[in-house]
Amino acid sequence: MDFSELIATKAAKVGILGLGYVGIPLAHRISEVGLRVLGFDILEKRADDLNSGKSPIKHIPDASISQMLEAGFEATTDFSRSSECDALIICVPTPLDKSREPDLSFVVETMDSIAPYLRKGQLLSLESTTWPGTTKEVLLPYFSKAGLEVGKDCYLVYSPEREDPGNPNFHTRTIPKVVGGHSPHCLEAGLQLYGTFIDHVVPISSTDAAEMVKLLENIHRSINIGLVNEMKVIADAMGLDIFEIIDAAKTKPFGFTAYYPGPGIGGHCIPIDPFYLTWKAREFGIHTRFIELAGEINAAMPQYVVDKTVKALNEAGKPLKGAKVLALGIAYKRDVDDMRESPSVFVMEILRDWGADISYSDPNVPVFPKMREHRFDLTSVDLSPETVADYDAVLLLTDHNAFDYEMIKKHAKLIVDTRGKFRNDSEVVRA
Amino acid sequence: MDFSELIATKAAKVGILGLGYVGIPLAHRISEVGLRVLGFDILEKRADDLNSGKSPIKHIPDASISQMLEAGFEATTDFSRSSECDALIICVPTPLDKSREPDLSFVVETMDSIAPYLRKGQLLSLESTTWPGTTKEVLLPYFSKAGLEVGKDCYLVYSPEREDPGNPNFHTRTIPKVVGGHSPHCLEAGLQLYGTFIDHVVPISSTDAAEMVKLLENIHRSINIGLVNEMKVIADAMGLDIFEIIDAAKTKPFGFTAYYPGPGIGGHCIPIDPFYLTWKAREFGIHTRFIELAGEINAAMPQYVVDKTVKALNEAGKPLKGAKVLALGIAYKRDVDDMRESPSVFVMEILRDWGADISYSDPNVPVFPKMREHRFDLTSVDLSPETVADYDAVLLLTDHNAFDYEMIKKHAKLIVDTRGKFRNDSEVVRA
Repeated sequence: MDFSELIATKAAKVGILGLGYVGIPLAHRISEVGLRVLGFDILEKRADDLNSGKSPIKHIPDASISQMLEAGFEATTDFSRSSECDALIICVPTPLDKSREPDLSFVVETMDSIAPYLRKGQLLSLESTTWPGTTKEVLLPYFSKAGLEVGKDCYLVYSPEREDPGNPNFHTRTIPKVVGGHSPHCLEAGLQLYGTFIDHVVPISSTDAAEMVKLLENIHRSINIGLVNEMKVIADAMGLDIFEIIDAAKTKPFGFTAYYPGPGIGGHCIPIDPFYLTWKAREFGIHTRFIELAGEINAAMPQYVVDKTVKALNEAGKPLKGAKVLALGIAYKRDVDDMRESPSVFVMEILRDWGADISYSDPNVPVFPKMREHRFDLTSVDLSPETVADYDAVLLLTDHNAFDYEMIKKHAKLIVDTRGKFRNDSEVVRA
Repeated sequence: MDFSELIATKAAKVGILGLGYVGIPLAHRISEVGLRVLGFDILEKRADDLNSGKSPIKHIPDASISQMLEAGFEATTDFSRSSECDALIICVPTPLDKSREPDLSFVVETMDSIAPYLRKGQLLSLESTTWPGTTKEVLLPYFSKAGLEVGKDCYLVYSPEREDPGNPNFHTRTIPKVVGGHSPHCLEAGLQLYGTFIDHVVPISSTDAAEMVKLLENIHRSINIGLVNEMKVIADAMGLDIFEIIDAAKTKPFGFTAYYPGPGIGGHCIPIDPFYLTWKAREFGIHTRFIELAGEINAAMPQYVVDKTVKALNEAGKPLKGAKVLALGIAYKRDVDDMRESPSVFVMEILRDWGADISYSDPNVPVFPKMREHRFDLTSVDLSPETVADYDAVLLLTDHNAFDYEMIKKHAKLIVDTRGKFRNDSEVVRA
C-alpha cells in the first residue's frame, strides 16, 4: 500500500517524536481516530510513565493516557523503531541559546537518531517553531543523504503546532492546522494525514511560508504585549490605570483587540520564537525593529515591578534590603503550573539581588522546581490572614483564580499589583 | 427644568460644533430620537448646503440631511446661538502642525467663540481626539473664567468619537460610547445625554482616562499596521508573500488578529493621533518608542513602493525618469473618496521627484482635489485595455472594488501591487 492508502484505510502507524506539551495531545488525538501511534522520547522516565498510564503534564489527565494505550499507543526511547512508522511528526523544543540565538539541537539530534532508518513511503512533518527555511535547509539534506527523493520516495512537510494549554474553547482537533509541503505531492500527503484528525487543514505554498506563519502569530502577541507594557508605564506616569483604559477601549466592536500588561512575558513561545526571525533576518541584512523593541520593553518589566516596590516601601520608610516580600503566583500564566520563562522568577531574582527576604505562594507549584538557570530553595506558603499580614510587601505576579483576593486585600500591609486585580484602589500600588 | 429633566422630556436642544465626518452622523442620530439639534460650523457654505438638504460627505446621502431638517435640524455659523443649547458637543479636527505637534487651534477657536455665551445648566462634551488632560487643562478654565462651577452650574465631559465611515456593520447608535466626566455629576449628566441616543454607554473614571482610551485604540492600529509593514519587507527579502502568511495566520482562532500592510497609512486618525500621546509623554520624560517606530516604518512605505518600482523598471532596462506611471487608487482606503493623509499622494510625490510621468485612476476621486500640502493638476484616467497598456508601470495603491483587476492584469506591462490583490503571480511585483 502507498502512503495515501495506508492513511485512507487507517493502516498507517504514526510516530510522534517528542512527548511533551505538543506531542502528547497530538498522539492522543491521532489515537482517537484509529491510527496506531508510536511515541518517541529521549527520556526513559517519560516513556515509562506514559506506558504505565501516568500523564507527565498536569492539564492532561491520566485517563487520556489510558485511552491512548487502549487504542494501541506505545512509548519508546528506541529511535530505530521509527522505521515502523509511515508518518513521523517532530514535536521537540526549539529554545534559544544564551546569546539568544536559535538552538536547533533537539531537532538535529532527533533527525540524527532517525536518519539511519528513513525509508521509502514515509512522511516527515516538523511541528517545532523555527525560522523560515529550516525544513528545506536542515531536514531536506537527510533525505538526499539517505538516497531518498523527497516528493517521490518520501514526503516532507512543515506544520506549526498551535497548542494552547488550558484553553477551554479550542483543542487539538478544532484548531485549524497550517500545512506547507516541500513539493505539491508532499503538501497533498500532509493535508491527507492531518485532515484525518484535524477538522480544518490550511494549505500554504511552501514550508518556508508555513514556518513564517507561526512566527508571525507569536511576534504579533509579543509586540502587542510589549505595546501595552509601554502604555502601562506612560499611563501610570499620568496617574491613569491602564487596565481601566484597556477595558474601555475593548468596548469598540472593531479595530481593537485587548492585550493586557504584566510583569513581563513568559512561556515557551512568546519570549523565544520572535528571535528566530531576528536571527534569520540578519542573513538578509534586515534588523527586526519591532521584535527587538518588544523584547526590550517586555524584558524590562520585572525591574519596573521591583522599582515600584522599592518606591512604595521607601514611602513607608523601609528599604527593600531585609524586607519580607511575598510573590503571589510564579507560574507564567493564570491557572497553569508551567514555569517556563516565568517573569515571576525574574522578579524574584532581582528582589533577591537587592537583599529582600523572599517567599512565594502558588497553589499550582507547591515546590519551587529545579530550573536550568534559576534556583530557589522554597516551597509555597499557605495563605492565611496571619501569613499575609506578616509580609512588608505582597506582589501579585500571576493572577490565579484560586487566590482569595479579598482576604489578601484585607490583611496585606502593602500590595503591588501587576495584573490589574485591585482596581480603583488608591492603596494598591500599580506596577 | 434642570438638565436631567430637559433630556428626559426631550425638551433639550443639542448644539453640534463642527459639521464634518463626526458631527453630521451625530446630529443625524440625535435628531432621530427627537431632540432638537442646532449645528455650528465656521464655513458658510457648509451651513448653507446642510440647510438646503445637501450632504457635504459622499457616504452620507442627501436623504439623511432631509430627515434631519424635517426633525428640526438647523445649521448656523452664528456661535452666539450656542446659548440656545442645553448640551454642546465639540467635533472639530485635531490635526498635527508641521513639527508633528498637536494643533488644538480648532478646539480653542471653538471655545473662544462660545465662551461669551456659556450659561448655567449647560453640558459641554469634547469628542475630538486629543492628549490626556486636554479637557481639564484647556476646556475647564473657560468655565471658571465665566464664573461657572463645573459639576454644579455646568457639566463637562469627554467622550471620544468612534465613527468609522463606510463600516457596514456598525453605526453611530450601535458603537458603544465611552464617557468620562470632570466630576461624578458631570459623568452622570454625560451618560444620560449619550444614553438617549447611543445603545451602550461606557462610563470611565475621568476625562483624562477617556482621552487615553481613544489614543490607545488608534495607537494599537498604528503599531499593528507598522508591524505588518515591517514583516512585509522581511518576508519579501526571504521570497515570501506576506498576504498569504497573514491569511494563514488568521486561521488561528485565538491570539491573532489580522492587519494588512500597504503603501503607508492614511486617514485623519491613525497617522496623527498617536503623536498626541508622544507630545504629552515628553512632559513626563517618557519617550513613546512603539509609536515612534511605527511612525517611522509606516512613513517609509511610500519610498519602499517607489524603490520596488524603480528596481522593476530597471530590470526592464528603463529608468523611472520619463517612465509613464499610473497610480491606481488615491483615496486613503478602499471604496471611500477621502484623501486625508493618503499614502498614495506621498507615493505620487516621490515618483514626480524622480521625474516619472504620472497619472492616476480613482473611480471615487474624479479630479485631484485641492489639498493644503499637495498639488497635482490631474483628473482620473478612465481605465481601458488601451490606457492600461500605455503605461510602463501600474501601481496598485488603493484596492477599490470598482477596479477591473482581471483586465488590468491582462493589459498592464508591469504591475506593482501594494495590496496583495495579485497573489501567486510571479510577474507582479510585491511592494
